[in-house]
Amino acid sequence: MASSAAATKVATEPNAVDRLVSSTRPGMDRVNALILERLRSHVELVPEVARYLIEAGGKRLRPMLTIAASELFGRPDGNEVVFAASVEFMHNATLLHDDVVDESTMRRGRAAARMVWGNQASVLVGDFLLGQAFMMMVETGSIEALKVISRAATVIAEGEVLQLAKTRDLAASRDDYDNVIRAKTATLFEAATEVGAMAAGADAAGRRALRDYGRELGYAFQLVDDVLDYRGESGTLGKNTGDDLREGKMTLPVILALEAANPAEREVIVSSLGRTEAAQSDLARVLAVFERHDTLGRTLDEAGQHARRAREALKPLPPSEMKLLLGEVVEATIARAY
Amino acid sequence: MASSAAATKVATEPNAVDRLVSSTRPGMDRVNALILERLRSHVELVPEVARYLIEAGGKRLRPMLTIAASELFGRPDGNEVVFAASVEFMHNATLLHDDVVDESTMRRGRAAARMVWGNQASVLVGDFLLGQAFMMMVETGSIEALKVISRAATVIAEGEVLQLAKTRDLAASRDDYDNVIRAKTATLFEAATEVGAMAAGADAAGRRALRDYGRELGYAFQLVDDVLDYRGESGTLGKNTGDDLREGKMTLPVILALEAANPAEREVIVSSLGRTEAAQSDLARVLAVFERHDTLGRTLDEAGQHARRAREALKPLPPSEMKLLLGEVVEATIARAY
Repeated sequence: MASSAAATKVATEPNAVDRLVSSTRPGMDRVNALILERLRSHVELVPEVARYLIEAGGKRLRPMLTIAASELFGRPDGNEVVFAASVEFMHNATLLHDDVVDESTMRRGRAAARMVWGNQASVLVGDFLLGQAFMMMVETGSIEALKVISRAATVIAEGEVLQLAKTRDLAASRDDYDNVIRAKTATLFEAATEVGAMAAGADAAGRRALRDYGRELGYAFQLVDDVLDYRGESGTLGKNTGDDLREGKMTLPVILALEAANPAEREVIVSSLGRTEAAQSDLARVLAVFERHDTLGRTLDEAGQHARRAREALKPLPPSEMKLLLGEVVEATIARAY
Repeated sequence: MASSAAATKVATEPNAVDRLVSSTRPGMDRVNALILERLRSHVELVPEVARYLIEAGGKRLRPMLTIAASELFGRPDGNEVVFAASVEFMHNATLLHDDVVDESTMRRGRAAARMVWGNQASVLVGDFLLGQAFMMMVETGSIEALKVISRAATVIAEGEVLQLAKTRDLAASRDDYDNVIRAKTATLFEAATEVGAMAAGADAAGRRALRDYGRELGYAFQLVDDVLDYRGESGTLGKNTGDDLREGKMTLPVILALEAANPAEREVIVSSLGRTEAAQSDLARVLAVFERHDTLGRTLDEAGQHARRAREALKPLPPSEMKLLLGEVVEATIARAY
């Protein structure tokens, strides 16, 4: 549901993410080749399941950010390709496990892997991808990057557990939500950009800038995602609108609405939250409550604040085309919501 | 069901595994302290689920083997404690995920974690343990040990997928079984003993000896386990007798029986294999077929061959009390079956 202004812009110049795709293409060609190579296994089911997900047309935003971050600092040492592939493997391992945890039916616009091969294969192939991500990282011999990545793996799992523990918890606070998205989303974006900077030998200030950029971009990305879950179109989202509501996820739009709701409005939300069979009409009633308290708008304001911080993080770096582009990627992330 | 000779022996001198417990106690005290420390998380559910499993009284055989292997080679450098804790975390991560995959109800003599907190928490806390295992390893800075451990994580996942792919596959061969147990069990034993040797600065021959010892012990251990699944008592096993049959697992006793069975015997096996609701009477009929073709006995013969190879692997090492004890641990592993 792009506004007409945004639509015009898209028609005249390519979106920042498309330009990121172009400008990271040589690096990403190597990343994609490495991904295919490392999906090989004498156990046929492993690449079958993994390729189904990985080739389903995700944007590969995280590994692109690793490549882009490395190119900001001049000549990367080649490890950025391995780091980027590892980040993508970790991300896909998380998706396979998340879909089992959330009992999701769709992912990237088609049936989730678990609907095709079952929960069992999804859990185990996720474990394979995690193992391969570490094996690749270890082969580079870069202990510093391994610290970043292994910490990220642990924090992401903690974030997913926290989200699970807060499911349908009507007392979940904005802080809880902040902790969840920081851990489950911002941490991998942060790791992706930091290890990219490391592969190019960035100094401590450069690493910090890219870490802050990645983290704030990750926050913004997740906040927008949590709005789109209510407002997007299933076709564009690659999953079903209202899934978060049906799964009882305490995202910011729900938390803000519960804070502001009168008893009748509260009942509208509570009666649909975590109810798998909630219908489109239930979703529409919840959206009407959101509308009255502008909770989707306020969630986007929050995303906008993180976007501002992401751009500010880049300020100390010397001017370059890639720096400009990374700034515009932040805008494009927010623009997804409009 | 110890034979009376074995029972007498137990009464007069402690079993080799008990002696391994005593002789690795100082190291294991540090391992256990590290395990508790690294289970901490600001997300309460994480240590709750993990401690429930880890403190349920597993023998901690794998980390004990790491400590024992390091002590074979004189003064270990302290990293053996971290390596041992990592190995135990990886093992428990695998158990959490396995129980989800196998839909197991019992583990270590009590309800499986997934029966208490659900599959979702089991998947995610398993991921946390894997992440922590790598984080700890990375903190030691030992790239060589990280290579061993990250490869093991990947191979184990592949083995689990292969086992899943072969579920109730009547064409599964002895080679398939060998590949499954090599990957899912022998690999972690092998890694446990090899990283122990590495922590004590063992040379290439010493590392190889311990790697071979661990792998062959792991094979023997799994073969005995696969016999006990049919012949043990639920109370001693910590899980239910006949689970492998109900889960459709193509373990060696089944494969050997299908090779030798006449059509009527084959039907007895096929009609219970993978049938969750198979009763004790069905299990008894399958056991009668096993009995006629001595498939449990032949599986134990196979375990005995691996046990012999495990002892032989230790031969080149200089004589020591620990070397003797590790040889006796092999015997004790086989003796579990009698």
